[in-house]
Amino acid sequence: MKKFIDTVDTFLDDSLRGFSTAHADIVHLIESPRFIKRKTSSEFDKVALISGGGSGHEPLHAGFVGYGMLDAACPGQVFTSPTPDQMLAAAQSVQSEQGVLFIVKNYSGDVMNFEIAAEMLECPCETVIVDDDVALPKDHSTGRRGVAGTLIVEKIVGAAAEQGKPLADCTLLAEQVIESTASMGIALSSCTVPELGQPTFELGPKQAELGVGIHGEHGRETIDLGSAQSMIHQINQAIYEELKPKKNQPIFLHVNGLGATPLSELYLVYDIAHRFWSELGVIVTRSLVGDYTTSLDMAGCSLTVTLLNDSMLEYWDAPVHTSALRWGC
Amino acid sequence: MKKFIDTVDTFLDDSLRGFSTAHADIVHLIESPRFIKRKTSSEFDKVALISGGGSGHEPLHAGFVGYGMLDAACPGQVFTSPTPDQMLAAAQSVQSEQGVLFIVKNYSGDVMNFEIAAEMLECPCETVIVDDDVALPKDHSTGRRGVAGTLIVEKIVGAAAEQGKPLADCTLLAEQVIESTASMGIALSSCTVPELGQPTFELGPKQAELGVGIHGEHGRETIDLGSAQSMIHQINQAIYEELKPKKNQPIFLHVNGLGATPLSELYLVYDIAHRFWSELGVIVTRSLVGDYTTSLDMAGCSLTVTLLNDSMLEYWDAPVHTSALRWGC
Repeated sequence: MKKFIDTVDTFLDDSLRGFSTAHADIVHLIESPRFIKRKTSSEFDKVALISGGGSGHEPLHAGFVGYGMLDAACPGQVFTSPTPDQMLAAAQSVQSEQGVLFIVKNYSGDVMNFEIAAEMLECPCETVIVDDDVALPKDHSTGRRGVAGTLIVEKIVGAAAEQGKPLADCTLLAEQVIESTASMGIALSSCTVPELGQPTFELGPKQAELGVGIHGEHGRETIDLGSAQSMIHQINQAIYEELKPKKNQPIFLHVNGLGATPLSELYLVYDIAHRFWSELGVIVTRSLVGDYTTSLDMAGCSLTVTLLNDSMLEYWDAPVHTSALRWGC
Repeated sequence: MKKFIDTVDTFLDDSLRGFSTAHADIVHLIESPRFIKRKTSSEFDKVALISGGGSGHEPLHAGFVGYGMLDAACPGQVFTSPTPDQMLAAAQSVQSEQGVLFIVKNYSGDVMNFEIAAEMLECPCETVIVDDDVALPKDHSTGRRGVAGTLIVEKIVGAAAEQGKPLADCTLLAEQVIESTASMGIALSSCTVPELGQPTFELGPKQAELGVGIHGEHGRETIDLGSAQSMIHQINQAIYEELKPKKNQPIFLHVNGLGATPLSELYLVYDIAHRFWSELGVIVTRSLVGDYTTSLDMAGCSLTVTLLNDSMLEYWDAPVHTSALRWGC
């Protein structure tokens, strides 16, 4: 295992300490139970947005804590759900009379633990489950996984909360964004979890994993490595079949790097995706290209498309000041 | 070679097309001779800042084209200098009566080609050479290499140019920043240039390359893979010996990912570096952590320290709107 690491046991604490020190103007780290919260709260009571999940997907979610997005994020150990006491402590720390909205990626541990925290919380609380990964069928036994679409939910609903929208509106908006969002990924290599010290799955030198999850879960199929054009086409097609946008539909197009794929390749993927959607007569209105929802040192990428309406677009454009997304501030 | 690529010959064009489409609000791609320029020019004549170099280091330099930083960037083929006609065309396209400043990383091809372009240019023109890599001794035959410190020069001088400072002042400021900046890197893996299709150098499973250049050039020595603490200490120490900051000196601390190292590890490295400098009584005043000056899919990182004065700090904080750095806009 070739990593910048001192001991496996202290990896997460060491990394989070660095994160919170580097962004001390934006966030504050609470060490036990572990969560990251916004340094400065809003001037008025607003709905508090909280997310979390296993670590190893940085900058998701701690990198999206700050003005206009999340109020707190609960990092579990690498690829392991955080515990209910983390979520409860985070919620109690940032809650307001407006209530709390939990934004949860659809993994059974995360869903269960956020549910326990919600039950223990003594303020209005809603939960939305993000399940944007179309690699699995809609009727899969545990549902679809939550992947890179999560940040779009966090950004859009974060802006609405910042503008004072009540809990019911934020929840409805989150559900609309989730409904309008589809993602799928592809891995060219596995990733190595520090605790394991070796790759979590095997891929031959001429193989790629289509529909991979952000922990390296098997997706649709292991395919032969092909041209970017042919591999990305399969992803575009799967997303298209899910969302079936009409002509002139404005979309948000997100090319997300899984960790070890250079930006130059992500832009090449973006070019392929942009042409695919443009040729369908769909309007690519906003874009985001880079490493946002990663899987440690996995080489690969995912595409996410959100069908935008006017208010989603306005909320996307609203000012944000987090360590990983920042504009208008 | 596992990459998102269609053909080796079209890789750069495909990638740049994606880049310029994704950031069409900020940049414009000129295809022949190839350069990226700012979409909107300033309201008044300002010194035009131009950089460039081999591709493979994204987001450097095209990602720093925009308000408050570069006016144009000239990308060569991967790890290959751009040609003088690119630089000349870029300069002619963005030049003003205030003149042109070339910001050049110290590689013989880049230096020579920018020099040829400068000679052909019929407007006031100055060139600064960035040579921040302290892995090599000061008296090395071709001088020290330019690495991640380049973006600090581009940001600080970009802000000064945007505020209307004349060419002589911008040049002097660039030289001050270069003089105040030191960097050093370490690789845990090689990188693969698309044209070659195989790693450019070999590292054993328990080896790291200390002082590596951003093309995988040999640095100080091949060392045994150790704890992050021990490896990063050697880099901190080398930078300290170069800059020898006094107590209470404000510094800018930049942890740069070389491409395939996860953000969680970069923050762990930042934590180690931040403690090193703080324990010396130096004040870490500004920070930047992430992939900014990369080496394709190389695993590794570099540290950069700049000794800040008040005006450098003010220029660093000034608004910037590029694809890779954005705040205040």
